[in-house]
Amino acid sequence: MKVQDIPSSQCWSFLGSRRLGRLGCALDNKPYVVPVSFAIQNPYFFAFTTKGRKAEYLKENPLVCLQFDEIASPQSWTSVIVEGRFEEIGGDAEQEHAHALLEDAAWWEPGYVQTTIKGNLRPAVPFHFRIFAEKISGRQGIPGA
Amino acid sequence: MKVQDIPSSQCWSFLGSRRLGRLGCALDNKPYVVPVSFAIQNPYFFAFTTKGRKAEYLKENPLVCLQFDEIASPQSWTSVIVEGRFEEIGGDAEQEHAHALLEDAAWWEPGYVQTTIKGNLRPAVPFHFRIFAEKISGRQGIPGA
Repeated sequence: MKVQDIPSSQCWSFLGSRRLGRLGCALDNKPYVVPVSFAIQNPYFFAFTTKGRKAEYLKENPLVCLQFDEIASPQSWTSVIVEGRFEEIGGDAEQEHAHALLEDAAWWEPGYVQTTIKGNLRPAVPFHFRIFAEKISGRQGIPGA
Repeated sequence: MKVQDIPSSQCWSFLGSRRLGRLGCALDNKPYVVPVSFAIQNPYFFAFTTKGRKAEYLKENPLVCLQFDEIASPQSWTSVIVEGRFEEIGGDAEQEHAHALLEDAAWWEPGYVQTTIKGNLRPAVPFHFRIFAEKISGRQGIPGA
């Protein structure tokens, strides 16, 4: 197997078929990683969440890292990393735009469902946000090379 | 779908069959997330890496977050998060222990192969490390509930 960089245009092509990514955020240098479903429109990654630790971190520190991958085999895989910035979405038009995009994409994220945390029902009050991609990079493993 | 917490004993059972996780680290509050193959022995997660950004971050700031998941369907999934601390492995016996564990587990990580980064061949000089789990938590989606 050979491991090599892939150009940013190829990173965006790869993301065209992705939904599920991992969002890394940090507060007081303490990292936190969660799986999130995104709707992707270069240079934005739209998602939603409810109140909770992720939302708290993002509002305190907008710096994030998104990670997407596809692992066909141990020797054949692609991983793309996006360094970006959390942005709140304001205004009805922007909220509706994000909501429409996410109706298709949000097949995983529990933001729309009631969640039982420590025995207590957490109400489902989602809010939309977006990540602005400042830098994108990727690597892939190529079998046999 | 219902989303609920899972107890730590169940988190460890879930991890028993996992290898591939995402490691989140942070430097100057800038998060960085990469896929990593782990050998897991409660309370340690063994892995290896070569020189690079991940190693630089880990040595500067030992606080990490590991994330593992299994997504059978949009309504049926498990995600486990480990908050822990990076530790260097010193001593021949400990290095050999980690190496033996990882021979089985390290089917993905490119740490053992030569990597071409920005056109330059980066030599494969892996070093083993471990993450000490300080806190573990998990959630799962249950269909139809």
